[in-house]
Amino acid sequence: MRKLMKDQEVGLDPYFRYRGKNQTRVEAFTDAAFALGITLIVLSTSAPNTFEELWLSMRDVVPFGLCVILVMVIWYQHYIFFLRYGLQDSRIITLNTFLIFLILIYVYPLKFLFKILFDLYVGLFTSDREIFQQLFTSVIKLEDTPTLMMLYGLGAACIFFTISLMYRHALKISSELELDEYEIHETKAALRTNLLMGIIPLLSALIALSGLFGMHNFTVSGFIYMLYPPVMITHGKMAQK
Amino acid sequence: MRKLMKDQEVGLDPYFRYRGKNQTRVEAFTDAAFALGITLIVLSTSAPNTFEELWLSMRDVVPFGLCVILVMVIWYQHYIFFLRYGLQDSRIITLNTFLIFLILIYVYPLKFLFKILFDLYVGLFTSDREIFQQLFTSVIKLEDTPTLMMLYGLGAACIFFTISLMYRHALKISSELELDEYEIHETKAALRTNLLMGIIPLLSALIALSGLFGMHNFTVSGFIYMLYPPVMITHGKMAQK
Amino acid sequence: MRKLMKDQEVGLDPYFRYRGKNQTRVEAFTDAAFALGITLIVLSTSAPNTFEELWLSMRDVVPFGLCVILVMVIWYQHYIFFLRYGLQDSRIITLNTFLIFLILIYVYPLKFLFKILFDLYVGLFTSDREIFQQLFTSVIKLEDTPTLMMLYGLGAACIFFTISLMYRHALKISSELELDEYEIHETKAALRTNLLMGIIPLLSALIALSGLFGMHNFTVSGFIYMLYPPVMITHGKMAQK
Amino acid sequence: MRKLMKDQEVGLDPYFRYRGKNQTRVEAFTDAAFALGITLIVLSTSAPNTFEELWLSMRDVVPFGLCVILVMVIWYQHYIFFLRYGLQDSRIITLNTFLIFLILIYVYPLKFLFKILFDLYVGLFTSDREIFQQLFTSVIKLEDTPTLMMLYGLGAACIFFTISLMYRHALKISSELELDEYEIHETKAALRTNLLMGIIPLLSALIALSGLFGMHNFTVSGFIYMLYPPVMITHGKMAQK
Repeated sequence: MRKLMKDQEVGLDPYFRYRGKNQTRVEAFTDAAFALGITLIVLSTSAPNTFEELWLSMRDVVPFGLCVILVMVIWYQHYIFFLRYGLQDSRIITLNTFLIFLILIYVYPLKFLFKILFDLYVGLFTSDREIFQQLFTSVIKLEDTPTLMMLYGLGAACIFFTISLMYRHALKISSELELDEYEIHETKAALRTNLLMGIIPLLSALIALSGLFGMHNFTVSGFIYMLYPPVMITHGKMAQK
Repeated sequence: MRKLMKDQEVGLDPYFRYRGKNQTRVEAFTDAAFALGITLIVLSTSAPNTFEELWLSMRDVVPFGLCVILVMVIWYQHYIFFLRYGLQDSRIITLNTFLIFLILIYVYPLKFLFKILFDLYVGLFTSDREIFQQLFTSVIKLEDTPTLMMLYGLGAACIFFTISLMYRHALKISSELELDEYEIHETKAALRTNLLMGIIPLLSALIALSGLFGMHNFTVSGFIYMLYPPVMITHGKMAQK
Repeated sequence: MRKLMKDQEVGLDPYFRYRGKNQTRVEAFTDAAFALGITLIVLSTSAPNTFEELWLSMRDVVPFGLCVILVMVIWYQHYIFFLRYGLQDSRIITLNTFLIFLILIYVYPLKFLFKILFDLYVGLFTSDREIFQQLFTSVIKLEDTPTLMMLYGLGAACIFFTISLMYRHALKISSELELDEYEIHETKAALRTNLLMGIIPLLSALIALSGLFGMHNFTVSGFIYMLYPPVMITHGKMAQK
Repeated sequence: MRKLMKDQEVGLDPYFRYRGKNQTRVEAFTDAAFALGITLIVLSTSAPNTFEELWLSMRDVVPFGLCVILVMVIWYQHYIFFLRYGLQDSRIITLNTFLIFLILIYVYPLKFLFKILFDLYVGLFTSDREIFQQLFTSVIKLEDTPTLMMLYGLGAACIFFTISLMYRHALKISSELELDEYEIHETKAALRTNLLMGIIPLLSALIALSGLFGMHNFTVSGFIYMLYPPVMITHGKMAQK
């Protein structure tokens, strides 16, 4: 039987020599924490006992789905990093512990924010004033929304900056890792990508904190995230050169 | 000592060259999520404090067992797919994230449906009218049963269609994967199997949604699942030719 | 640098050619379920808020520790089986699914029984009549104790019989697995060990069910477990011949 | 393409021949339990429903972060041990089971202690007398604080002594493991490190238990942990010679 050439490498960059193809314990540990995080986003702690409870929980499918996508974007960055460099030294383990901690404390604020945003959009599209009223009295006071945006922004910024620090560490020991020119170029690009992914939420958090835009603070700090597509596309194009 | 020939391949198809024998992180991550899902089906959130609570929880062994079988059928499809192709490119990771999300939001409706169905059958066999009365007043209103069947059917359909999309992706990049004729044939058969496994619940959901059968909607949409054995056996025979 | 001869094989039987040294997904999945089971034994669902709650939870360290040992004995049987034969065919996956299901439904009854037994022994040693009174009024009625023993016995019996079935499957396909004479002998011994480990709780369950010993049923069905040490030691000696 | 020399070994000791580079099930199992432990430290069981609840939960980020660091220090010791010797014999599995059990019963007392300590420091820095009053009436009585220190100290001591026993086992079978002189030296150093890491909390527990320092018992038994840095640095210097 003819031997397979590219066993388990389809879809990977053929010019990058992946050093971490064997899963280490650091990754196994992180995956368990991520899986727990996602489960805690999606599932409430108690199963529904009546159909009404079940039906109400279905409402949250959209916001929870968005949260899962977000967490998986972070997981993917983590996955690519460990696949590329296969590092498991004490510095990476320290950064990774910090990352797991950030993800876990970030899970509930994320869930909370996305439920609110979803209710807001439902309220906007259906012009249902009651939704707003209920939201801004029993769930969150209007004056607390900038604090929420700040929490969310700081969390996201810390997460992506931690991944950036991981890439910086890989760059620092590039000679030990025997990175060639192409691999160094790719590492630098990934470092910049993660820095940019952290700067946007940091900007949003700072705006929310500053109170510069008065009562529009919540809206403005939210719309900052619109910068993601243009910034990422421009950066992607520049990195390819 | 004589070397073992077929190490860890007993029971696998000898004509298919399995590309994913080394477990990737995508699989480890998914397994953790599946294990959490199954645990949440079987266990209530708090341990019983009295024997009565313990005894009551034993009632649910049968419906929960059926749920676990169902989730494990999905797991087995997932397992075979990754064992065969060992894919871990971004498209498969995206589909896989969607699959995990579906499984997790599907866990509680599944548990809910099977508890109701079990109560119904217990009621039918024991001719205990009180069970029905209690079920259709405090747990679910009779007019909500089609909606439950629709939820269940849509969930199952989405899950199997997502696995179908995974197989379609494997087919698309068959030359990169170096699939030979036999392997392509098997991949196509698996794609069709998963499509069929999704079409039956979709049909059931559509019937439940349509309201065509009036008060028999719940029953009819349930009995559609009886199609599984004949359809699967016919397809199995056709695939072997 | 001199190559290591017995890498990762210290403590294993040198005459048995372990076929399952690479962890499969079946094992990873099972481990996640076992870890969840053990966590649910040890931890209550909510963290203590006051020192009194914390102190009360410390009481359960002994019974919970015994539960963990029991679950780990089962895990060890599972571990040895998969290490030996590395099987992952559909029959083993089916048996394994059943095993995971059994473990998970078994976790809470186990926890419940051991808490009661511990309270009983504390009551006996301290001659504190109030403990008995409280136990047999608010926790479990005296007449329900045989049912508890039956539940516990049946669960344990099913678990070890499932592992026995796994060994029987390994024996059946021994030529495919290329088991040599020594390996077949060891497999048969393991099959018998697990059968014996299941027969003792089955006996206890039958006695509890029979009601033969009247009000001493609970005690008699409990003392049956004393058979473990003599039976296991006798069997161990016979297997070595 | 040029082969990589030091694949997945960057950051590891080049003079130590790591015997456990392939993750065993013992490690996978332990990692799942550790990940569950950390998740249970960080996350309360129910997600916040209002912004106030969310904001209150943010308070605990600092103490929970410290708990996570502590648990990860233990994880790192576990990780290094299994990476070095790759042992999976029955003795190591027994010790490892005991370790997992200790970690899980230790999680909630740890969380409890660090929340109190954090409140104490907040109270000290802000000179807010009300914090003290609330803490020592509704959370823990002042006379119970030595018991808490004892619980915490005994837990930590048992954990590090268990890891010490693992190292002692590795030393005992050093000829089977084919440890060379350097590796034996490193093993002995690690054994001493873990003994010292256990002796300090044991000392603290004994002081707390003794009641020697009267009302200052809580403070004195806490300050014992200040011994960690000087003891560890001195030992580190001696081990290098």
